[in-house]
Formats: sequence, C-alpha cells, structure tokens
Amino acid sequence: MSSPIYYYTLHLADNALVLGHRNSEWTGHGPILEQDIALSNIALDLIGQARNFYQYAARLANGGRDGARSERGREEGRHDGGRRDEERGEGARAEVTEDTLAYLRDAWDFRNCLLLEQTNGDWAKTILRQFFFSAYQFYFYERLQQSQDRELAAIAEKSHKEVTYHLRWSSEWVIRLGDGTDESHARMKGALDQLWPFTGELFIPADYEQALSLKGIAVEIAGLRGIWEERVNDVFQQAQLIKPAASWEQTGGKTGRHTEHLGYLLAEMQFLQRAYPGCEW
Amino acid sequence: MSSPIYYYTLHLADNALVLGHRNSEWTGHGPILEQDIALSNIALDLIGQARNFYQYAARLANGGRDGARSERGREEGRHDGGRRDEERGEGARAEVTEDTLAYLRDAWDFRNCLLLEQTNGDWAKTILRQFFFSAYQFYFYERLQQSQDRELAAIAEKSHKEVTYHLRWSSEWVIRLGDGTDESHARMKGALDQLWPFTGELFIPADYEQALSLKGIAVEIAGLRGIWEERVNDVFQQAQLIKPAASWEQTGGKTGRHTEHLGYLLAEMQFLQRAYPGCEW
Repeated sequence: MSSPIYYYTLHLADNALVLGHRNSEWTGHGPILEQDIALSNIALDLIGQARNFYQYAARLANGGRDGARSERGREEGRHDGGRRDEERGEGARAEVTEDTLAYLRDAWDFRNCLLLEQTNGDWAKTILRQFFFSAYQFYFYERLQQSQDRELAAIAEKSHKEVTYHLRWSSEWVIRLGDGTDESHARMKGALDQLWPFTGELFIPADYEQALSLKGIAVEIAGLRGIWEERVNDVFQQAQLIKPAASWEQTGGKTGRHTEHLGYLLAEMQFLQRAYPGCEW
Repeated sequence: MSSPIYYYTLHLADNALVLGHRNSEWTGHGPILEQDIALSNIALDLIGQARNFYQYAARLANGGRDGARSERGREEGRHDGGRRDEERGEGARAEVTEDTLAYLRDAWDFRNCLLLEQTNGDWAKTILRQFFFSAYQFYFYERLQQSQDRELAAIAEKSHKEVTYHLRWSSEWVIRLGDGTDESHARMKGALDQLWPFTGELFIPADYEQALSLKGIAVEIAGLRGIWEERVNDVFQQAQLIKPAASWEQTGGKTGRHTEHLGYLLAEMQFLQRAYPGCEW
C-alpha cells in the first residue's frame, strides 16, 4: 500500500497526532486551570482528527476493510504498522488499524511537518506554534472540503469547525502575550525566532501532495501561503510583533526526515502499545 | 524465580543501570569537553556493573544457565523480563537474559532507589546525586566483597576500584561548586534541598535485603549510614555546605513504587528493544 492517497492521509493524521500529543503534555501544567483545560481540549480535537484520518488510511491499506482491534499481528509485537509482513516471513498479511499506524510506526515513517514535533518550551512557544498551525489548518480544511475524495472532504468539514475555535483562541493569546509585559513580549520574540524557520514547510508540497493536487484531491498548499501570511501579519500587528525576514526553511518532515525531538516523543507516546501489544482498555 | 538473592541482585543491577542511563543523558551536553567525557565514562562503568549483576540474575532465573541472545520469547515481544510466561499461556518457559531484564521489565519491576531516577536538573544536581551515591557505593562494595555469595563478592571487588575514582571526582566537584561563586553555591543548595529526602532510602533495607544480610550475603546497610554521613560532612565542610536537618525520607523504589520520572526514563531507554524485539548490533 504505497499510493499517494495513503501517504497523504497519513501525513494529515500525523500532523494532528503529533501536535495533539505535544499539547497533551501540558495537561496539569497549564498556567491557569481554565487555559490548561482549553489546551487539553484542543489536544483532544486534534487527536480526534488524527483518528479519523488513520481510520481512513487503515481502510486504504486493507483494501477497503476496517482494521479490527486486537489482531494476531499486533499481539506478536509487530513494529512496522503492518506494512512489512512479507519481509518478516509471516504467512498472512496482518491487519492495519488506526492503532498500528499511530503506535507501531517508527520516526522515519511519520510524515508530519517539523513545526509540530518541536518541543513545547514555555507557554509563549506553545501558543505561537498553535497559532501558526491553526491558521494553516483553517484555510487548509476550508479547501479540503472541496476535495474530489469524499472521505477527506467529510473529515475536513467536521474538523474546520474545531479549528475555527483553535484559531480564535490562539490568536487572542498571541495578542495578549505579544502586547503584554516586557517579559511576555520578549518570550514571544524568542519563540518567533525558534519557530519561524519551520513554517515554510507547511507550504512546500511533497511528491504525494503534488500528484494528488493535480487530480483535485489534495489542497494546493503553495497557494495558501499568501492568505496565511496576511492573517499572521494582522494578528502580529495587534500583538506588536514583527515577522522575521525570509530565512532558511527547514523541511523533511513530510518525507520522514525529522528533528531529534520526534524520536523522544514517539518513545513516550508509543510505550504502552509496544510494552503491551494489543492491549485494550 | 522469586528468591531474595534474585531480587537483591536485580536491585543492585537496577541501581547501577538507572544512574548510568541518567548520566549518559549528559553525553554531548556537559559543561566542558573533559568533564562531559568524565561523566560519560562513569556512566559506562555503572552500566558495566549493571551488566555483571544482570548476567548473574539471569543465571539465577534460568537455573544456572546463561540466557542466550535472541531467544524465541524475545522475538515475540515479551514484555515482562521473562517471568510470567505461564500466565501468558506459552508452552515453553522463555529464557531470561541481561537484555530482557534491562529492557523488557516495566517500572514496578525495577528495584532501584528513588534517588537514582530523579531528573538530572542542572550540573549541580547531577554532581550531588553522583556524590551521594558514589559515597554509598564506596562503603557498600567494600563490604560486599566479604559476601558469602562468591559471585556478588567478585563483582563488588571489580566495581570498588571504579567507584573509588567516581567518589574522588564527584567530591572535588561538590567542593568546587559549593565553595565557588554565589551562583554555583546557590545551585548546590537548591540541589541539596531536592535530593536530601531521597538519601535515607539507601540505608533502609527491603525484605530481601534483611533476609540475606542475616545469612552474610547482603550488606547490612543500616550500619553504613554513620560512616556515609561522616564522609558527606567532611566534603560539605570543605564545600561550605550544611547538611539539612533530618526530614521525611522518601522510600518505595526498592520494592517497585517509583516516582513518575522512572516511567519516562524507561520509555526512552527501552524503545529500541521494544520496537525491534531481539535486535542485535
């Protein structure tokens, strides 16, 4: 199973899962209870989006069937998300499920953008990363609703409502911190220096995106950069922040070349499934 | 395999492995290259001590046989260090090896003292933790050389030479930082406040220690506290540090009740074996 649509769906799922996991690391550590809960809810929304995409990817991988839970392959500690069974000499092809995709693939099989796997840092960095990505998802899902692929269009429609709230929440925080105290402003500037080089990748299509946008399935992301920058500029103006000059753009995440941070994130996120293969609640 | 000698040997192995892993986290991050290498060498010594103890524990678990590498049980992603095969309904009892013990047990099966799993914090905290434990190991291994168990006595003899150096190195650093600048002194005081409550556990015997010290196999650790405190006082005097008043003593690690930090440490340390069961270099 290596068609562009499979990789594209995984890319969308990985984006949502990795940022959702990062946000979940704040649970119980937020600056005040109300905002702790707000960010945890955003984490849940993103993980929910990831599930929808993973379920679709699993159906694609299984030739239309849902992957059942607790498959034999998982109980034997399969570690490749189900895609290399032939190489391992097993007779039957093991089922791919949302869980094998999320928990049994290694870093080089993840296709999320590098921005999303960066460490949380302080509240300013977490907020700014969320704002950058929510603004991106806002315009992205808007367009994905027109996809020729009806599954993707349906997930996009449901997700767009959630992201509208994420964007409003994170925009307000960017303004509050940027136009706040000297300390909060300095922290936002620091976060901006760290994160800006990772924003370019959002708009640079990988092979599978290019192939699918020609067919009207994938969003033509290069065309989103202008409207995204407009939104960023608008919020930055209110936040007394200045967009950095164009600089080197870090890429690679969409094709599996990640920063060191993803490995640590996966080690923690995947521990339970790897230690107790096929475990259920 | 649940005899006191097996648990005692695991306890000694876990102590060394967990601190060795913590120290290894500094590799490439030390304050200056020479000291980065010094701490990495201490990490290697400790992991070497852990291997010796794990190999002995594996022989005890297997009824005298060494656990062979790449056993069938490991390749199926066994997750319990090999001790619950009957429960899982497998026919043959899978072999226990140094690797299954280090990499396939979960937190509640680890018997290391809580002091050793605490996070590295800054250089002051790492140094002080090392000093506390090296001073402990120095007197401990001295006495374990007299053990009625010849295997443990032999490992202790070899290890004592290494620890003599660890103790000298960490003592010098405690003095340098404690009797250094205002900043370094303040950091040592902060580290002391954090770590002191975890030192008591070193001298409070678990059941398996008590059973074995009656037989002349385990070191009678309660009797080490006096000489250990003398050494600490001596170094603290030179370092302009003051031992905190007696306080609550955190315990539980020796019987598998750990702080949250151990879970994160294991997730990272065990990722490779759990993702790729039975992998070899």
